[in-house]
Amino acid sequence: MDSKNDKQANVETALSLLDKAAETGADMAALPEMFTFMGDKEGYRTAAEEIPGSVTEKLSQKASDHSMWVHGGSMFEIAKEDGKVHNTTVVFDPDGEQRAQYRKIHLFDVEIGDEVVTQESARVVPGENIVTFDTGFATAGLAICYDLRFPELFSSLAGEGADVIILPAAFTKHTGKDHWESLLRARAIETQSYVIAPGQIGDKPNSVPSYGRSMVVDPWGNVIAKASDSVGVITADLDFEYLDRIQQELPSLEHKRKELYRI
Amino acid sequence: MDSKNDKQANVETALSLLDKAAETGADMAALPEMFTFMGDKEGYRTAAEEIPGSVTEKLSQKASDHSMWVHGGSMFEIAKEDGKVHNTTVVFDPDGEQRAQYRKIHLFDVEIGDEVVTQESARVVPGENIVTFDTGFATAGLAICYDLRFPELFSSLAGEGADVIILPAAFTKHTGKDHWESLLRARAIETQSYVIAPGQIGDKPNSVPSYGRSMVVDPWGNVIAKASDSVGVITADLDFEYLDRIQQELPSLEHKRKELYRI
Repeated sequence: MDSKNDKQANVETALSLLDKAAETGADMAALPEMFTFMGDKEGYRTAAEEIPGSVTEKLSQKASDHSMWVHGGSMFEIAKEDGKVHNTTVVFDPDGEQRAQYRKIHLFDVEIGDEVVTQESARVVPGENIVTFDTGFATAGLAICYDLRFPELFSSLAGEGADVIILPAAFTKHTGKDHWESLLRARAIETQSYVIAPGQIGDKPNSVPSYGRSMVVDPWGNVIAKASDSVGVITADLDFEYLDRIQQELPSLEHKRKELYRI
Repeated sequence: MDSKNDKQANVETALSLLDKAAETGADMAALPEMFTFMGDKEGYRTAAEEIPGSVTEKLSQKASDHSMWVHGGSMFEIAKEDGKVHNTTVVFDPDGEQRAQYRKIHLFDVEIGDEVVTQESARVVPGENIVTFDTGFATAGLAICYDLRFPELFSSLAGEGADVIILPAAFTKHTGKDHWESLLRARAIETQSYVIAPGQIGDKPNSVPSYGRSMVVDPWGNVIAKASDSVGVITADLDFEYLDRIQQELPSLEHKRKELYRI
């Protein structure tokens, strides 16, 4: 997606892309980070909602209409702290029931020359929980964008049994060109999970351009689907027999020396 | 290096490559994993030595001859356990003094179809310590080959202040083609360290071919030196002002949520 200031237009685009995903026969569809709003700083709080709320009701409806899991990328959720929000993923099952909620735990406070200057913590309250949920066909783990730089989160998700990890993002072009694919592939290899990473693309009002290149990486680290530099839907088949074989043949998850690490 | 059954020849090659490295003006030179011996399974114990011993004395001598740090890749060290060895790195400072010793903590027990079948734990006793040391120009952290798949080790090294991580390897061709560069780059990015990875290359007696592609990765994740598919020396300049700038501009090491991880 290329979300900008117009929340209604962003949500309509998201719903239409979910329809397209359903047309491909998808069992699950996932949206990118901040799909409802990527705009001027003063607009974040206005764009935020309670959960459940108007946007999550629409996602829930799409899930049940299509009998499809819907991973709602992330959206701004009104936080208790005055004027602040959470950067939150909500997931619905094919009956439209909410099955998971994850608030981004690592906030993007960086100042890379003039290229990328952002202080997410000025408006976002971080989450306090690591979240997995069971889909029937897989255990899924949740992460958002900057979380990608923290392998301890991914090890934690793998330790909870995740074999699919979904990371919606709005990775910046400047960091994405050098870090996006390499980190996604490494997370897939080291957790021996499928990594699904729907990304924002395009220039953003009062912010930096997003890198795009939505990607699905298999548990061997191969990129099995990658978006063109445009808005749209990509699909991939996840093969859990293949995943099981990799985990059996190269059992690195069982070889961890947890008693030695100093985390 | 392309170490095989002939220990004396392997050691002579290593010493000659250290001379070549010194000729480039290197402050530190690093050898690959198992540089003294990669051969028939019954030869491992015979190739093993006490530390200090004949091979480490030669490395120490080279270090002082050239006033250069020498990282001795890894060699087989006689273990207390009958018939077994450690896979051990020894490091010498420019005065020839031993400054660090690291025994590989993760052992490569895998069975990937017919491609890679190996049980390192049958002959190797794993180490029990995470090791860093101070060089004056950097804090260096130690790892060996299969350790690369365990980000918790690298997080631990970064937590101990490592800004250079040295990982000698004999990565297999089958896994290396898909995992070597991606994992090395990810470790550099997530630890914001230089990663120096000298690798074995070539077919090995009674074992699988090694991938080679010795590499130096900078703390932004760029590969700044990479070996051709041949035996030889590669060099790179490490820029610690550049490293400091990356750590200041993108302070992900300070953004960890250690209280939440479930390692």
